[in-house]
Amino acid sequence: MKRERKGDIWDFEHQLPAAGGGSAHTEKLILGLDGGTTNTICICMPIVAFTPNHSPPVYARAVAGSSNHNSVGETAARETLEQVMAEALSKAGCSRSAVRAVCLAVSGVNHPTDQQRILDWLSDIFASDVEFFVENDSVAALASGTMGKLHGCVLIAGTGTIAYGYTEDGREARAAGAGPILGDWGSGYGIAVKALTSVVRAYDGRGPETMLTSSILRQLQLSSPDELIGWTYADPSWARIATLAPVVVLCAEAGDQVANDILLYAVEEMASSVKAVVQRLGLCGKDGKDNFPLVMVGNVLETNRRWDIGKEVIRCIVKDFPGTRPIRPKVEPAVGAALLAWNYLIEQYQPDVE
Amino acid sequence: MKRERKGDIWDFEHQLPAAGGGSAHTEKLILGLDGGTTNTICICMPIVAFTPNHSPPVYARAVAGSSNHNSVGETAARETLEQVMAEALSKAGCSRSAVRAVCLAVSGVNHPTDQQRILDWLSDIFASDVEFFVENDSVAALASGTMGKLHGCVLIAGTGTIAYGYTEDGREARAAGAGPILGDWGSGYGIAVKALTSVVRAYDGRGPETMLTSSILRQLQLSSPDELIGWTYADPSWARIATLAPVVVLCAEAGDQVANDILLYAVEEMASSVKAVVQRLGLCGKDGKDNFPLVMVGNVLETNRRWDIGKEVIRCIVKDFPGTRPIRPKVEPAVGAALLAWNYLIEQYQPDVE
Repeated sequence: MKRERKGDIWDFEHQLPAAGGGSAHTEKLILGLDGGTTNTICICMPIVAFTPNHSPPVYARAVAGSSNHNSVGETAARETLEQVMAEALSKAGCSRSAVRAVCLAVSGVNHPTDQQRILDWLSDIFASDVEFFVENDSVAALASGTMGKLHGCVLIAGTGTIAYGYTEDGREARAAGAGPILGDWGSGYGIAVKALTSVVRAYDGRGPETMLTSSILRQLQLSSPDELIGWTYADPSWARIATLAPVVVLCAEAGDQVANDILLYAVEEMASSVKAVVQRLGLCGKDGKDNFPLVMVGNVLETNRRWDIGKEVIRCIVKDFPGTRPIRPKVEPAVGAALLAWNYLIEQYQPDVE
Repeated sequence: MKRERKGDIWDFEHQLPAAGGGSAHTEKLILGLDGGTTNTICICMPIVAFTPNHSPPVYARAVAGSSNHNSVGETAARETLEQVMAEALSKAGCSRSAVRAVCLAVSGVNHPTDQQRILDWLSDIFASDVEFFVENDSVAALASGTMGKLHGCVLIAGTGTIAYGYTEDGREARAAGAGPILGDWGSGYGIAVKALTSVVRAYDGRGPETMLTSSILRQLQLSSPDELIGWTYADPSWARIATLAPVVVLCAEAGDQVANDILLYAVEEMASSVKAVVQRLGLCGKDGKDNFPLVMVGNVLETNRRWDIGKEVIRCIVKDFPGTRPIRPKVEPAVGAALLAWNYLIEQYQPDVE
């Protein structure tokens, strides 16, 4: 997809109907982007008021590959981000000139230098009066549960896990999210690795027998625990190994003690990450009883299982912090990113809102 | 180094003095090879009787790179093995025709198919009456402590860790050695990873403060625990990370509780591997009190520290198996490999020994 910079048109823009004519939207717009290690999602939303009980209006949604500059390199990350924004605008029938704010929440953005590089490049694409927000992707996850307000804690547990927290006066803190070598045991990867290890230990006589042995071998179509070593090191990518986490839940539900213990350990790990963040930021107030939102995101925390990991994590946190207000977001993180910008614009430019 | 096969000469062999003339050795020889993931060592030893209290006579020693076929591929592994044997013979001033037995103990040899492939290739190089022994490298480590006798248990703990055991009637068993993803926590890598994780946990508020933070940052010349994530994933090779294990020992010796707990955990893990092997093979007899040799190999088990990991492992095993007879080998594994062949030949061909 050929695109040109500042002032020049993106290749779809000359095909748009003239402003006000045809079916194209003419409101001012926000782009919200959620860039993970697997894919990047961009949504396009008008700057209109809506009640908190209703879903935010979304004009268009586009999906592209990874935009984590650590994984794919900076040039490819930019290409992907530019492409997914162009596609969302094209689907909405809008041009860049309608964009009023862009909130880009991308994994791999951890330092002010990462932020500045992306800001420089965004200002090269959009007009000078557009507002930019460049954040870590956990910010979009938090905002998806708080309707754009940066306050509270978010716990993300998918292939990896991280707890991130923000206060209303702009302080932030994180715990875990250091990757599997550095002990993210609450993650889907962590759960799966503990299960694989338990199978090896049962096999060589170091640990108790477990249902995980037959269940994992069946799932991987292997005939002996010996072969797990080869399977693991043939491709030790985190996401591939994390796909075994649901097997552990099934075994725990069927009463297997080893699987049960693995999940309990993961629960304690995740709760400990959240507690560390809450305590450092004082989200719970001085007496530990203040209310604060805890946004729960990621497939490890999904609620459709009898052994409900998310519920156990909450139970564990509420014991120490009774003011914990758990939230399962109803919108996706890309919408959360857009809501963050929306929230900011609403506060700053109240008169502009239609 | 140009070499030719069967019957043809290796390129140094035509330079050797005629048999019986000059300074070249004329006895029959054994080649002992220890092939690890880092390097391969070959020693050349004459088939002569010697008393167990004296060191076995070694004519020559040669060192080459890795010969683990999983790491470097089969062709390169063969090239390395052939080169290191040729070099040892050349240094000893001997030709292949003097070789009576070859014991090749290489990491990565786990299945009969691995063994057969190497046997086929050895019989292509040497005369048909040469005895071959192809084993996993842990066999050489055991033999280095038992003067070539395949009986007892060996615990290896360097970058990785494994416990291997053999009975006199040919049964064998192993525990651990499944690599870091699958929980070899007793290894140098395991100890280092636990230390790095403790630093991250202390930093984000999940764990207690520890001296490991300043010690590891100083060692790696980093300024903040934040940078450990980048350091770790920039090159997560096991050996590079395992170099941090001695820092943990130093901190434990200085009284740091976190470091102390990491070492105690590693000790329990290693002891549990040995106990699993001993129990499965019944090395301890029916009443659990029989004598059996426990050969201890690898830098994690070195005895020159005040916090003596090896001593603690032994203490832990002896509690359950009072007949444990710990051995710190006085010769290197390549000599152990040669002794294994020597032991076999002595038994089979007693009259041949000079």
